[in-house]
Amino acid sequence: MTTLQHIDAYWRAANYLSVGQIYLLDNPLLTEPLRPEHVKPRLLGHWGTTPGLNFCFAHLNRIIAERRQDMIYIAGPGHGGPAAVAHAWLEGSYSEKYPEVSQDAEGMRRLFRQFSFPGGIPSHVAPETPGSIHEGGELGYSLAHAFGAAFDNPRLVVACVVGDGEAETGPLAASWHSNKLLDPYRDGVVLPILHLNGYKIANPAVLARIPEQELLKLMEGYGYRPHLVGPSHEEMAATLDAVFDEIAAYKEGRVDRLPMIVLRTPKGWTGPREVDGKPVEGTWRAHQVPLSGVRDNPEHLAMLEEWMRSYRPEELFDADGRPAPALWGTVPDGPLRMSASPHANGGELLRPLALPDFRDYAVEVKSPATRSTEPTRVLGTFLRDVIAANPHNFRLMGPDETASNRLSDVFEVTDRAWEAEILPTDENLAPGGRVMEVLSEHLCQGWLEGYLLTGRHGLFNCYEAFIHIIDAMFNQHAKWLQSSKRIPWRRPVASLNYLLSSHVWRQDHNGFSHQDPGFLDVVVNKKAEVVRVYLPPDANTLLSVADHCLRSRDYVNVIVAGKQPVLDLFTMDEAVAHCTRGLGVLHWASTDEGSEPDVVLACAGDVPTLETLAAAAILREHLPELKVRVVNVVDLMRLQPPSEHPHGLPDAEFDTLFTTDRPVIFNFHGYPSLIHRLTYRRHGHHNLHVRGFKEEGTTTTPFDMAMLNDIDRYHLVMDVIDRVPGLGATQAHLRQRMADARLQARAYTREHGEDAPGTRDWTW
Amino acid sequence: MTTLQHIDAYWRAANYLSVGQIYLLDNPLLTEPLRPEHVKPRLLGHWGTTPGLNFCFAHLNRIIAERRQDMIYIAGPGHGGPAAVAHAWLEGSYSEKYPEVSQDAEGMRRLFRQFSFPGGIPSHVAPETPGSIHEGGELGYSLAHAFGAAFDNPRLVVACVVGDGEAETGPLAASWHSNKLLDPYRDGVVLPILHLNGYKIANPAVLARIPEQELLKLMEGYGYRPHLVGPSHEEMAATLDAVFDEIAAYKEGRVDRLPMIVLRTPKGWTGPREVDGKPVEGTWRAHQVPLSGVRDNPEHLAMLEEWMRSYRPEELFDADGRPAPALWGTVPDGPLRMSASPHANGGELLRPLALPDFRDYAVEVKSPATRSTEPTRVLGTFLRDVIAANPHNFRLMGPDETASNRLSDVFEVTDRAWEAEILPTDENLAPGGRVMEVLSEHLCQGWLEGYLLTGRHGLFNCYEAFIHIIDAMFNQHAKWLQSSKRIPWRRPVASLNYLLSSHVWRQDHNGFSHQDPGFLDVVVNKKAEVVRVYLPPDANTLLSVADHCLRSRDYVNVIVAGKQPVLDLFTMDEAVAHCTRGLGVLHWASTDEGSEPDVVLACAGDVPTLETLAAAAILREHLPELKVRVVNVVDLMRLQPPSEHPHGLPDAEFDTLFTTDRPVIFNFHGYPSLIHRLTYRRHGHHNLHVRGFKEEGTTTTPFDMAMLNDIDRYHLVMDVIDRVPGLGATQAHLRQRMADARLQARAYTREHGEDAPGTRDWTW
Repeated sequence: MTTLQHIDAYWRAANYLSVGQIYLLDNPLLTEPLRPEHVKPRLLGHWGTTPGLNFCFAHLNRIIAERRQDMIYIAGPGHGGPAAVAHAWLEGSYSEKYPEVSQDAEGMRRLFRQFSFPGGIPSHVAPETPGSIHEGGELGYSLAHAFGAAFDNPRLVVACVVGDGEAETGPLAASWHSNKLLDPYRDGVVLPILHLNGYKIANPAVLARIPEQELLKLMEGYGYRPHLVGPSHEEMAATLDAVFDEIAAYKEGRVDRLPMIVLRTPKGWTGPREVDGKPVEGTWRAHQVPLSGVRDNPEHLAMLEEWMRSYRPEELFDADGRPAPALWGTVPDGPLRMSASPHANGGELLRPLALPDFRDYAVEVKSPATRSTEPTRVLGTFLRDVIAANPHNFRLMGPDETASNRLSDVFEVTDRAWEAEILPTDENLAPGGRVMEVLSEHLCQGWLEGYLLTGRHGLFNCYEAFIHIIDAMFNQHAKWLQSSKRIPWRRPVASLNYLLSSHVWRQDHNGFSHQDPGFLDVVVNKKAEVVRVYLPPDANTLLSVADHCLRSRDYVNVIVAGKQPVLDLFTMDEAVAHCTRGLGVLHWASTDEGSEPDVVLACAGDVPTLETLAAAAILREHLPELKVRVVNVVDLMRLQPPSEHPHGLPDAEFDTLFTTDRPVIFNFHGYPSLIHRLTYRRHGHHNLHVRGFKEEGTTTTPFDMAMLNDIDRYHLVMDVIDRVPGLGATQAHLRQRMADARLQARAYTREHGEDAPGTRDWTW
Repeated sequence: MTTLQHIDAYWRAANYLSVGQIYLLDNPLLTEPLRPEHVKPRLLGHWGTTPGLNFCFAHLNRIIAERRQDMIYIAGPGHGGPAAVAHAWLEGSYSEKYPEVSQDAEGMRRLFRQFSFPGGIPSHVAPETPGSIHEGGELGYSLAHAFGAAFDNPRLVVACVVGDGEAETGPLAASWHSNKLLDPYRDGVVLPILHLNGYKIANPAVLARIPEQELLKLMEGYGYRPHLVGPSHEEMAATLDAVFDEIAAYKEGRVDRLPMIVLRTPKGWTGPREVDGKPVEGTWRAHQVPLSGVRDNPEHLAMLEEWMRSYRPEELFDADGRPAPALWGTVPDGPLRMSASPHANGGELLRPLALPDFRDYAVEVKSPATRSTEPTRVLGTFLRDVIAANPHNFRLMGPDETASNRLSDVFEVTDRAWEAEILPTDENLAPGGRVMEVLSEHLCQGWLEGYLLTGRHGLFNCYEAFIHIIDAMFNQHAKWLQSSKRIPWRRPVASLNYLLSSHVWRQDHNGFSHQDPGFLDVVVNKKAEVVRVYLPPDANTLLSVADHCLRSRDYVNVIVAGKQPVLDLFTMDEAVAHCTRGLGVLHWASTDEGSEPDVVLACAGDVPTLETLAAAAILREHLPELKVRVVNVVDLMRLQPPSEHPHGLPDAEFDTLFTTDRPVIFNFHGYPSLIHRLTYRRHGHHNLHVRGFKEEGTTTTPFDMAMLNDIDRYHLVMDVIDRVPGLGATQAHLRQRMADARLQARAYTREHGEDAPGTRDWTW
C-alpha cells in the first residue's frame, strides 16, 4: 500500500466508526445484514462536519509519524464528536482510558452504543474525549484556545480546524490576529485549517460564498500565508508537506508569516448523496443525521447499510474488530498520538508555581484604618516577582487595562507580548512579554483557557463591568471543570483566576455603562465545587487571597479588589487569619465587646467596608451605648450553608457571628439579591437588610455613587436607627442629621465637582 | 473663506469646545487670562480620540450640506463624548434640547461645567447626547449598530467611526461581514471610517502596526474598497467626494462594493506635543487628559491656555459666545443636522406594527392537557403574518437557528437576507429577506439594537444557553433604555424582544454545554422599569405573550418557550386571561376546590409545568383527599412585591394565591435561586421549596434531564410527602413507589436509549 492508501484506509475507518456511533446499537462490524433493532431509537449526532475532521486527523497523523512532530488537535466544529472519539479509539488511547471500550468487536459495539446515549458519552467533543481541550459547545473559541495552548510550548504545533460557521462569530474573527503576540522562538505554532464545507445548521456559511480572491486577501490581511486545498488526498498531503516546511522555516526565522490552510470539502462528504429525493451530501441537510427514519423506513435502513459498507470495513478491521494492518502505516505512537498527548491533559504537565512569600509584600499596618493603600498596586509587586520566578509558565492577561488596574510594577521584569511593529516611543512592548494585552476580553479569556488546560498558570485582570463580555465563556469553562473533576484520568489544572478591578464603586468617572457588579451572580450559578468568590477589603488581604488562588486547582476564582486607595485594615498576620476564616468580626471597630450586639454591621467589598466602618464610627460617637458588631466577609461562599458549598460556615458559627434575632445591615459590593440568595437558609435571614448596587449610576464622584445606591455611611446609620427596636423614636434627631449630611454632601459635590471633605478620605 | 477654511474653522471650534469641556469651569471664551479657579478640580474625559472624531464631523457636514444627504454618525470611540457634545452645540440642536445650555457665552460656560461633572452629563456619548444611538461604554458594537440603523433605511448613510482599539474586539471584527446582508436598494449605506490614531489606553493598536498592504488586504477581504487618508483637510475632502460618488454608484448598482476609509491621524492631534519632557501628541499618553496638574502646576496651566488659544477662539465665536460666521458655511440645517436627525431618536419615526389578531392562530383546546403542540411552530405562523404585514420595519434575527427553533413558517412569506453567492440547491435565501441569520449572537443583538433605536421593530430568537454570549450587550442596552426613559426628548422605542427556545430542558441531545437557563438572572439584575420575563407554558399563552411584547415600548422582554411538543393547557380566551393576570390557579388540575389547600404546586416554564401537572395527577390518584392547588406563573415579575416591580402582585393577592403557611413546591424553569430572590419579601417565603436547574446535565433523554435535577413528577410527589405535615409518616409507601419509579425510569432510559413510556407523552 502507498502512504496515501494508508491514509485513505485510516480515513475510511474513522468515517465508518463515526457513522456507527451515530446509528448503531449492535452489529458493529456488519457481520450480519443490518436490521432495525441494530439501530438506536433516537439518532443524535452531527455527521456533516465529521468526515472533514477525520480527513484532517488522517493526514496530520502522517506528518506526526514522519516528522516526529509534537501536535495536538482542536476541533472547532466540536459537535463532530464522533470524529474525535473514532480517532482516539483507532489510536488505542480510548481503550487505555476506558478499558471496557476495548479495541475489538465488543469494544466497538460499546463504542457505538455509548455515543449520545443515556449513561454514555456526550455527542460533542467534551472532557470525556481523550486528546481534547476544547468543548464542542458554544462556537467561536477554537483558535483562541489553540493560541493559548501554543504560548510557551516552543516544540508544539496546534492544529486547529475552524468551522466555517464558527468563523462567523466575533471571538473567532478576532482570534486570527493572535499571531501578533505569538513568538516564533519562545512559542509553538498554530496551524489554522479553515474548513469550508459550505453550510451551518440551515444556511450557507459566509466565508464559503465570498469570491476566492477575497477570502485569500482576508487571510493575508490577518497575516497568514493561505494554502487552498480541495477534497483530495493528493492535494492535502502535498499541501501539508509544504506547510510543515514553511513552519520549519518560520521557526528558524526564515519566513515571518505562519501558513494556514483553506480546506474545501462537501458537507457530509462520503455520506448519502440524496435522501427522499433531496440532495444531502454537500448541503446543509447533511448537518446532523442524513438518514433519520432508519428504524421504520426500510429504504433508509438499506441506504445506511450501503453507506457503511462503502467504507469496506472488511479491509479496515480484522474478524475480531481490531484495526487491520492497512491502518498501521500512519498512526503515531505513544504520547505523539494526538489523542494521548499530555498537552491535552494539562494536569499531567502542570508544575506548581514558584511563589515568593506573599507576606514579604505586606503593607505595614500599625493601627487599623489610619492609612490608605492602593491594593492592586501592592499586588502588582507580588505579581512582578511571580512573573520573574516563573518565566515560562505564567501569563498575565488583560484587555489593555494592566496599567489602568495599577499592576504596572510587573513591567519592571517583563513587557507586553508584541510581534508587530515597535516604535521608539513605545514602552514595555517586546516579543515574549509575559503580559498579554489586546482590547478583547474574549481573547484574554480564550488564550488563558487554552494556556491553563495545557498545564500552565495565569491571571486575567479586567474592569469589573466588562467581564460580562465573557459570561458565556466562563460558563463553558466552569462546565468543563465540573465534568473534568468527575473523570479519573483528567488531572487537575491550575484555576482560572480573575482579578476584577476598576469596579462599580470606582467607575464614577466613566459613568453608568461601566457600572455593573453582576458577574458574581453569573459565577454563583455554577456548581459550588468549581467556583470561589473573594472580596478582600485591603491590600494585605488581597495578597493573601491572591496567593491562595494561585496555588489552587480546578476552580474559577474571582477576586474583586479596587485600585483606588482604601484603608489598610489588617496586619499581614491578621490578614492571613481573616482570609483563612473567610469572614470575621472587626473587634476594634465593634462596641459589643463579646456580648450579644444590638445590631450587626456586615460588609463585603472594599468600598462597602469603608462606608461600614465610617458608619460604625458615627454610631460610636453618637450612640456609644449601642452595641455594634462589625463583620467583614472576604470569602463570599462562607455565607452559604455547608450543604450548599464546601466553604459554607456551619449554622452554629453563622448564628454566633450574625445572631439569630438582631438586625443585620449588610453592605455589599454587588447586587443585594446575591447576599439574600446565599443566606436564605440561615436562621437570621429575616433580620437581614442588604444594601448594594441598585443600578443607580452616572458620571459623578465616588461618594455620590455610594449615596445614589444608599450604601453610604449616613444611610447605614439611618438603617440602624430604623431597624434597632426603640431607636427610631429616640434617635429621630440623629436620623435627621444623617439625612441632612447626605443632602449637604450631595450639594457640595454638585457645586465643587468633588467629594466633600471627609466623605472620601475618612480614617478611624 | 474657502470651503476647506470653513471646515477647518468648524474643526477648531469643535476642538476648542472639547478641551473646554474637559478642563474649564469658567472663563469659557478665555476673555481673561486662565486662572486655576477656572479649572475643574477633577479632570475626567478622553482627549485622545476627540480631534479625530471632530475632524470627521466637520468633513461629513460639508457632504451633508452639499449633497443634502440624510446621515447619522456613530462614534465607535464613544468615550470621546466631548466631540459629540461640541458638535451638537455648534449645530444648535444641543440648545434646542437643553435650552439652559444656550448658544452663547453663558451657555458655553454651562456646557463646559456640566461635562463629566456631578449632576451634569456623562463623559461618554450617552442617551443624553443629541444625535446618538450608540453609548460610549463597552467597545465593539459600533459597526453592528450602524448596519442595524441602515437596514430598511434606503436613503440613509450611517457614518461609523471605528476606533483602532475597538477594532480588536470580536464583535467588531465580525461586524465587517454585515455587508453580506445589506441590500443596495432596500437598505441604506454604512460608511466605516477606521480611525487609526495608533493607540489604546496604554498600548499601540494592532491594526495601526501591521503593514499597510496587509491592512488594505484585510479590508478588501472583508469586501470593501478601502481609501487611505492622512491627517489633511485636502485629503479628507477629496476622499469623501470620491467615496460618496462611489456610494451613489453602489446605490445605482454600478459597483458592488461599499467604500470604507482608513483615516490615520495622531492620537490627541493638535493637543500638547510634549508634557513634562515626554511626548504626548501621537502617543497613548494623549488618551485621557494630557495635562493633569493644571490647577497646581503653573506650567501646565500656561500650556492649557496656549493650547486652547491655538484654536483662535476669537475667530470662531463672537463676543457673546455665539458661533461666528466662519463656521456657518458647512453646517447643515434642520433635520439634516446629524445631531438632530430623527433617526437618532428613533421613537420620533416609530410606527406601531400592523399586527394580525393573534387569536386567529390559536390552537383549539377542547380539554386541557390532552393534546400536545409545538409552541414555537404556532408562533411561527403568527410571525409569518407579522412579517407579511410589516415588510419594511420588522426583522427577525437569529444565529442560524430560526428553522431549528421551528419558526420556519416565516419562510412562506420571506427569506433569509443574503447578498453573497446563491446556489441552485439553496432554500430561502434572497436579497432583502426579513430573516437575519449569521452565526453570531453579537451581530444579531447589535443589528437589532441599531434597528430598534432608529425606530423599527424586531425579535431575536436564540438558543437559551447561548444568549449569555450577549449578556454584556444586553446590560448596555438595558442601561441605555433606563437612561433614555429619564430624558424627556427621547421618544419611546420598540422593546427588544428575545425568544429563547431550544431551552435547558430540551437540550438533552446536545448535552451539558447547551444547558444553562441563567440569562434570566442577568436580566433581573437590571432596573425593574425596563425588564420583563415571560414563561408561557403552552402555544396559546405564547401567542398572547408575543403579541403583548410586540406592542410594548422601551422594555427588554424575555420570552422562554419550547419548540418541542408540550400539552395544550389553555383555550385562547383562557390564555389571554391567564397572561393578563400573569399567574393563576389551574382549577382543573387542583383539588382544593376553593378552600385552603394542603399544599401549593407552583410552576413556571413549559417542562416544569408539565411535570407539575403530572405530579398533581399522581397525587389526585393516590391521595384524593389531599387538597392540592396548582398555580402557574407566566409573568415572572408578578412574584416580586409591587414596591420592587410595577408588575408585582399585591401582598394580599399573593398570600391568597400561595397561602402564608402551607408548603409551596415551586417547579421552575431556571436556577431555583431566582424564585427565592423574587419572593424573599413575601410572607410565605419560608414555606417555599423551589426545584429548578441545579447544573446537572449531560447528553441523555428529556425525562432523565428532569430527574437529574429533581424537577420530575416523581420527585415532586416525594417533595409533597416530605413537606406536608403528617404525610411523611402515613405515605412512606407512596414515597418509596416514587423513588422506585425514578430508578425504573432511569434504568429503562439507560437500556433503551429513550424515555420510558408515559414519562414524556403524559396527558391529563
